Amino acid sequence: MDISSFVTSLLTSFVIFAVLVLVFTWLSRRPGNAPVYYPSVLLRGLDPWEGRGRGTRSPVGWIRQAFAASEADVVAASGVDAAVYLVFLSSVLAILAFSGIVLLPVLLPVAGTDHALEDSTGRVPRNVTDFERLALGNVQDGSARLWAFIFAVYWVSFVTYFILWRSYKHVSNLRAAARSTSDVKPEEFAMLVRDVPVPPPNQTIKDSVDSYFRALHPDTFYKAMVVTDITKADKIFQEIEGHKHKIAHAEAVYAESKIANRPEGTRPTHRTGFLGLIGKKVDTLEYCNEKIKELLPKLEDEQKSTLSEKQQRAAFVFFNSRAAAASASQTLHAQMFDEWTVTEAPEPRAVIWTNLPRKIYDRQTRQTVVYLIVFVTVVFYMIPITAISAVTTLEQLRKKLPFLKVVVDQPLLKTVLQAYLPQIALIVFLALLPTLLVFLSKSEGIPSQSHVVRASSGKYFYFIVFNVFIGYAIGSSLFSALQKVIENPTGIVTTLGSRLPGNATFFLTFVALKFFVGYGLELSRLVPLIIFHLKRKYLCKTEDEVRAAWAPGDLGYNTRVPNDLLIVTLVMCYSVIAPLILPFGVAYFALGWLIAKNQVLRVYVPIYESNGRMWPHMHTRIIAALMIYQATMLGIIGLKRWQVSS
Amino acid sequence: MDISSFVTSLLTSFVIFAVLVLVFTWLSRRPGNAPVYYPSVLLRGLDPWEGRGRGTRSPVGWIRQAFAASEADVVAASGVDAAVYLVFLSSVLAILAFSGIVLLPVLLPVAGTDHALEDSTGRVPRNVTDFERLALGNVQDGSARLWAFIFAVYWVSFVTYFILWRSYKHVSNLRAAARSTSDVKPEEFAMLVRDVPVPPPNQTIKDSVDSYFRALHPDTFYKAMVVTDITKADKIFQEIEGHKHKIAHAEAVYAESKIANRPEGTRPTHRTGFLGLIGKKVDTLEYCNEKIKELLPKLEDEQKSTLSEKQQRAAFVFFNSRAAAASASQTLHAQMFDEWTVTEAPEPRAVIWTNLPRKIYDRQTRQTVVYLIVFVTVVFYMIPITAISAVTTLEQLRKKLPFLKVVVDQPLLKTVLQAYLPQIALIVFLALLPTLLVFLSKSEGIPSQSHVVRASSGKYFYFIVFNVFIGYAIGSSLFSALQKVIENPTGIVTTLGSRLPGNATFFLTFVALKFFVGYGLELSRLVPLIIFHLKRKYLCKTEDEVRAAWAPGDLGYNTRVPNDLLIVTLVMCYSVIAPLILPFGVAYFALGWLIAKNQVLRVYVPIYESNGRMWPHMHTRIIAALMIYQATMLGIIGLKRWQVSS
Repeated sequence: MDISSFVTSLLTSFVIFAVLVLVFTWLSRRPGNAPVYYPSVLLRGLDPWEGRGRGTRSPVGWIRQAFAASEADVVAASGVDAAVYLVFLSSVLAILAFSGIVLLPVLLPVAGTDHALEDSTGRVPRNVTDFERLALGNVQDGSARLWAFIFAVYWVSFVTYFILWRSYKHVSNLRAAARSTSDVKPEEFAMLVRDVPVPPPNQTIKDSVDSYFRALHPDTFYKAMVVTDITKADKIFQEIEGHKHKIAHAEAVYAESKIANRPEGTRPTHRTGFLGLIGKKVDTLEYCNEKIKELLPKLEDEQKSTLSEKQQRAAFVFFNSRAAAASASQTLHAQMFDEWTVTEAPEPRAVIWTNLPRKIYDRQTRQTVVYLIVFVTVVFYMIPITAISAVTTLEQLRKKLPFLKVVVDQPLLKTVLQAYLPQIALIVFLALLPTLLVFLSKSEGIPSQSHVVRASSGKYFYFIVFNVFIGYAIGSSLFSALQKVIENPTGIVTTLGSRLPGNATFFLTFVALKFFVGYGLELSRLVPLIIFHLKRKYLCKTEDEVRAAWAPGDLGYNTRVPNDLLIVTLVMCYSVIAPLILPFGVAYFALGWLIAKNQVLRVYVPIYESNGRMWPHMHTRIIAALMIYQATMLGIIGLKRWQVSS
Repeated sequence: MDISSFVTSLLTSFVIFAVLVLVFTWLSRRPGNAPVYYPSVLLRGLDPWEGRGRGTRSPVGWIRQAFAASEADVVAASGVDAAVYLVFLSSVLAILAFSGIVLLPVLLPVAGTDHALEDSTGRVPRNVTDFERLALGNVQDGSARLWAFIFAVYWVSFVTYFILWRSYKHVSNLRAAARSTSDVKPEEFAMLVRDVPVPPPNQTIKDSVDSYFRALHPDTFYKAMVVTDITKADKIFQEIEGHKHKIAHAEAVYAESKIANRPEGTRPTHRTGFLGLIGKKVDTLEYCNEKIKELLPKLEDEQKSTLSEKQQRAAFVFFNSRAAAASASQTLHAQMFDEWTVTEAPEPRAVIWTNLPRKIYDRQTRQTVVYLIVFVTVVFYMIPITAISAVTTLEQLRKKLPFLKVVVDQPLLKTVLQAYLPQIALIVFLALLPTLLVFLSKSEGIPSQSHVVRASSGKYFYFIVFNVFIGYAIGSSLFSALQKVIENPTGIVTTLGSRLPGNATFFLTFVALKFFVGYGLELSRLVPLIIFHLKRKYLCKTEDEVRAAWAPGDLGYNTRVPNDLLIVTLVMCYSVIAPLILPFGVAYFALGWLIAKNQVLRVYVPIYESNGRMWPHMHTRIIAALMIYQATMLGIIGLKRWQVSS
């Protein structure tokens, strides 16, 4: 990529970004869009426009507000998890900024005044860009200037350790503060007990849990709640809820029809068969009311029998003080390791109830299987995609799915499809991957949603770092690279060292594109906006339905964090090879912090609160990025010296 | 090695063993030897000959008694640790016996009736022994008979898992029983606190520990004892003890001289200078009494100032119930991980006091350095030995240590020494290795003696398995083998597979020699016997000195367990290759169990009690042996099949 096309792509993305920011500024000021741009504020029962004087509606008002909001405001609006995510962004920002402050003034002159890229006549060839002249590639092999680069590696490492140490303490304090507030949360007084042994025949599980923990904690035990299998009761409950929902919708439709057509209106009807398409036509309101009447006593019966008969071998045990619960959840409670295993209780809304009764051996087996699947997916993910795209040629698709004929028979579309089918398969796979990873993590038997998010975030991190970064850098599929590694393990460092420098421009463009376009879309929320307006116009009839249409969801840590960590790995690895990447990294995380703070204050609503449990996950992976970086630099600098001595 | 020399070496070792057992039977019946053969019984205040009727002094009396003693007797005599060691021996015995019951009748006929070792004329060459004909080597490549061997691998694995699972439960019950007896031990009510932060200026460390834990455990906190630096006080105390010891010895000598020479006797004297060789000649009794009078007030002063001024940043915290102490020692006590770290309190006599005040970072650094040293020692231990023996030729030794001249100038001795100097260096190194490993483990900052023993036992296991087993089997130094592994990691399995079968006879002889000669020496206690009688005759004058001369010590788990584990690894790995090794393995552990039970009941005195903490260590290493075995078999059977298909 030459310098002009690089600048072009940079400018294009910047223009897109600027347009999206303008769109955001304009759209977010229209009160009708408030549910899209201020859902979190609305849900907390506040007026998005209230209490803001001069400049509230100014284009940069949101920036001022993001800066003005303190960490306590963030915790109040979105919880400790969001605050910790902001700490993560600002830590990385600090690492890159402090690295840049030293690396740019030191390395750019050192590299720029050397002559490795000049040809024998002392001129710089036309195809060498200024960007390349300011990088490690322009330093002559074995030159004393390399010492500056070695020093730079140490500096970046030192800065990383120092910032992480400070952030660790900061997050630790945040977490401690959250756990010692006066508003009491039930999970702070509870612990989760799993692998309850089979009780003697004359005892229920509830009795055995009660007596076991009352004996062990006579002074602090409060009560135990046994997990029950509510599948059946829940099914009836969901059915009733569905009917209630249908009634509300039908009433809204009925009311509308009264106004529009005739005063008596049309009573809404539907068919009872599959998807409402076949079967007997019935009056919706009557039918549903009848159904509810039928189901209510059934539900009550089921609820009663569930409580007594469907007790599962897991329970929540409550204590009368926070300290007792915290201490008990860390203590071994049984002689054998496979009975009475205890852990901290997750938040009620984050509990994955179906996973609680899983036995310890079941959990271990599932974990092993899942790890194996993930390993295979990370390393060999190209194989099934190639296989699928080889088997499912366009002709075969056309035969098997005849309704595609209309599309496939267009000559132009056919050519495009034939050329891009493997790529489409890849894109579909990549789009589905996070969902797949969440599903796999859930299958491990993890007891809480927040833990599942951390687990799948870790898996996604391995996937993107191995495939996007190492895969691209080594310039071949990871599978063949791995074969090389098995044959020659020390070779990986040299390979990384020789391949990475050439790809600097590509990754620089990647980072720039990612933050301009990605953050533009994030801020302007064009997709949710369009979906919301479409739904409101055509689908939603009741207040509840409208509310569901603008439900903002949470930050989506399981993809957001690994993506940020990929950028950290990238920028770190290139920080010394091509220091010009640092300003882009700084811009990425500065903008990221700003926009995340805005979104956290105004848009996203957390679906759980883990009190910053994500931090160790982020911390270790920043260290992992640092280690990849150090290994790479070992290879690159080693190569530069070795070429001289050989 | 052909069959006759194998039988010869077997017979020789058996004769040695029989002689040693006879010696033991004869010597142990002489009352004068009781302190050597019954020290543990004497120390518990019992009469070794009491309460034993008919057959007590019969040659097999000790065998009958060993069988008759229950596990409770063992716990009473030598503690839970000894009982757990016996469980380990009997578990391994059971694994090998159950394996043998199936493997011998199945594999011997399968191997013996095949013809891989016959030459083209259908005859067995002369140099092939019967032993080799009954092993895997005689099965033809790609033969269906290999299925029997594959089945055998599964059988051994299954038996191992099953026996270990049963033993795990047994040991767990032993441990639980030991912890719920009515005799109260101080460590059960205490926990060890390390990394106490620097207290505010107006507080002592004792005050800050007291207030911290009283606040966290208001109902259960009893008191805290801060660790103090007693180096100075202890030095004075040791000096006083030394003088007291000298007085007792001198008085005995004085009394002796009265009887032998003249009634007034000779008052013993000594010189005050270096090693009693130079300096002023003084009357020992007067001099020492005066010294003690001088030192006593000094000691009192020092003791007082130590308690108040030399408090270290570690403490024992006592609770008013076992449950409170157990729960507290498993609970996190501070927000930051590097402050107030708590662990279970070790037994008072097992505490390594100097390690307690070490900070967490100090400990981590030391651990890393020690692991590095051990790794280097395991892998490269031949290098310094070769270097030393190369540098210190005999001529140089003669120049530097002239007093060796008399020895070195003997022509015969000179030849022998010149030939064996490297071997002698190696033997010295191997003899010092356990001590070195204990020293290294202690340097890690481990707080208790029992933990040090476990740590150095683990290190020794790595050393002997890697060097004796893998090193010998691969047939080259581990270093060059490691290079091959780095170049071609999957090759290790194939290498093991191709090399191991050839060495079966060597290792069989090794196991036989080890149990006949080793156990014979262990049982007959010839070395302690000789040392005891020499000391009693020439050195000991007082009762205390005699007692010190026969102090039996403990079992020495740090070398005993790894050596047993080496045999487990060996026998397992050869169990399917050459099933005839199994009877020898069974004999090794049967005899081992018998002799260990005798020694535990009568001889060894434990120096600490860790309630069977050694078990997980043994358990994991048996699993490790199983895995080495499975990897080896993968290589061997893979090779047998592969040679056909290629």
